[in-house]
Amino acid sequence: MASGHDAAYEIAADDETVHSAWNNDLEPVRTVEPGTVVRFECRDSTGGQLDPDSTVADVADLDVERVHTLTGPVAIEGARPGDVLAVELLAVEHRGWGYTLVLPGEADLGLLADEFPEPALHVWEFDGDVARFANDIEVPLDPFPGVVGVAPAEDGTHETFPPRSVGGNMDIKQLTAGSTLYLPVAVDEALFSVGDGHAAQGDGEVCGTGIEAPTAVTCRFDLRSDLSIDQPQFETTGPFTPTGRNEPMYGTTGIADDLMTATRAAVRNMIDHLHDERGLDRNDAYILCSAAVDLKINEVVNAPNWVVSAYLPERLFPDEQRRAA
Amino acid sequence: MASGHDAAYEIAADDETVHSAWNNDLEPVRTVEPGTVVRFECRDSTGGQLDPDSTVADVADLDVERVHTLTGPVAIEGARPGDVLAVELLAVEHRGWGYTLVLPGEADLGLLADEFPEPALHVWEFDGDVARFANDIEVPLDPFPGVVGVAPAEDGTHETFPPRSVGGNMDIKQLTAGSTLYLPVAVDEALFSVGDGHAAQGDGEVCGTGIEAPTAVTCRFDLRSDLSIDQPQFETTGPFTPTGRNEPMYGTTGIADDLMTATRAAVRNMIDHLHDERGLDRNDAYILCSAAVDLKINEVVNAPNWVVSAYLPERLFPDEQRRAA
Repeated sequence: MASGHDAAYEIAADDETVHSAWNNDLEPVRTVEPGTVVRFECRDSTGGQLDPDSTVADVADLDVERVHTLTGPVAIEGARPGDVLAVELLAVEHRGWGYTLVLPGEADLGLLADEFPEPALHVWEFDGDVARFANDIEVPLDPFPGVVGVAPAEDGTHETFPPRSVGGNMDIKQLTAGSTLYLPVAVDEALFSVGDGHAAQGDGEVCGTGIEAPTAVTCRFDLRSDLSIDQPQFETTGPFTPTGRNEPMYGTTGIADDLMTATRAAVRNMIDHLHDERGLDRNDAYILCSAAVDLKINEVVNAPNWVVSAYLPERLFPDEQRRAA
Repeated sequence: MASGHDAAYEIAADDETVHSAWNNDLEPVRTVEPGTVVRFECRDSTGGQLDPDSTVADVADLDVERVHTLTGPVAIEGARPGDVLAVELLAVEHRGWGYTLVLPGEADLGLLADEFPEPALHVWEFDGDVARFANDIEVPLDPFPGVVGVAPAEDGTHETFPPRSVGGNMDIKQLTAGSTLYLPVAVDEALFSVGDGHAAQGDGEVCGTGIEAPTAVTCRFDLRSDLSIDQPQFETTGPFTPTGRNEPMYGTTGIADDLMTATRAAVRNMIDHLHDERGLDRNDAYILCSAAVDLKINEVVNAPNWVVSAYLPERLFPDEQRRAA
């Protein structure tokens, strides 16, 4: 889709403009005034190591040092520690394809990495607003940047993998076009970078990746010295469900005295459901959970046990496979 | 609202039919065949100790032994351990009022009990489909039973407070009329009980109570010996957002290396937002989070940090108080 917003600057994703770690000492690729619209080309999270013809055999050769190739940083004139950088996401465009990766082993990626020890790769074919999967399943697309943030206050190199109070790898799937993200500025000129585009993702990103996709992100920057925040906040219109609609869903619960244990149980129960009742193989079930099943915390106050549920929309399936609800 | 479903049996909430603990030795109030529709009158969670005229002064006198007054149990003929009891929720009716309670101290109730040490009570006035709150805020109503389950396999008395694999105090706000809940049967004849009606609740129920309300729950029972589940599962049409609509929302994040810490941070940040930016006092902010703010797990795979966000719909506020999104 076209952005419909005129960017003052276009930042390509070339060797001069990409980086794979946070560091407040990185040279800005450009300095802009508040109010400026910038369009960032973003490679996929592997930095272009996978393409539409990749197979699971290529996964073994991945250079994980290049993972989260980000574009930037852009310096925001006048930004000072304690300010809030408002990032209005005007457009997020994909390039017509994406993939979901299961990467256990050394990378140890995924909520159930211990139960899914084999790497897997699904390359998604996009068709208009949906991505196609096994069993005629269709996952609606609504792209967003998985990594979006500013440089940390602490000097030195910081991996992109963990999200931090300055943002980064938050994987908030509601940060779609039309959203505004507020980031706490930690260093002079903020030093904003973005990447790790996802064409879709379930809340939780349970297998470790969403529908990873090269993207272009167009945003307008503003400084809000009237706000004071410790961690990112945002305004969004969703999607608040995997399909962006309220509709019949199938839910599995995880009930345990630890939120992580409950979350793992809810996902494991959903994988069992997708395998036993919907006929998916277990790797595909895990991938589908990561791309299109949402996690909610139902209650976190009934000690000693908490409830987390996983939500699967019937609309992902062709008519004849849907359950009556 | 009227149920529109003819119940074969109506179970009143009187001293012969209510109980405040799970126990597989309780005498059934009735035995029914699979396929039967039963309508349960349910007291509010305190068992009628609060009424529309109650004030915070009454909270000190609460007898917590009566908390979760449940109606039942009803025995399901032919149910055996390992079966699945399907509970089709045909209607959930409130009685026109409800309350939200903050009960720290000995009960130690609430996600932020340590930060909100004073008891508080808000009695909600219902007006059609909404409940009214401070600052002209309106919370949409969609009632559901907070506690719904079958007797545990383990002999003896079990408190109703923690949810278990046989269900109970799950507080899954999507278990509204039209939903079907699947419960793993643990004892002969299942022994089903229900209560703790909530007229509305945010995912998380963070202050420890939803909009607590006396209710009537009409359901149809069926046995599904073809299914095998370890923990409850369900089919539902929502609500999947606090208002049941996809619409502009304000989000706060909690980013930490522990899901509970992240959850507490997201809620604390939302309370700060409601106080600083929306003019609510802090107790009201905590209560509104429990009644109408949803918790989602955004990612649980980017070790060592996880992201939980809290979602506040703009539609709760009158037009002039809404933020442009």
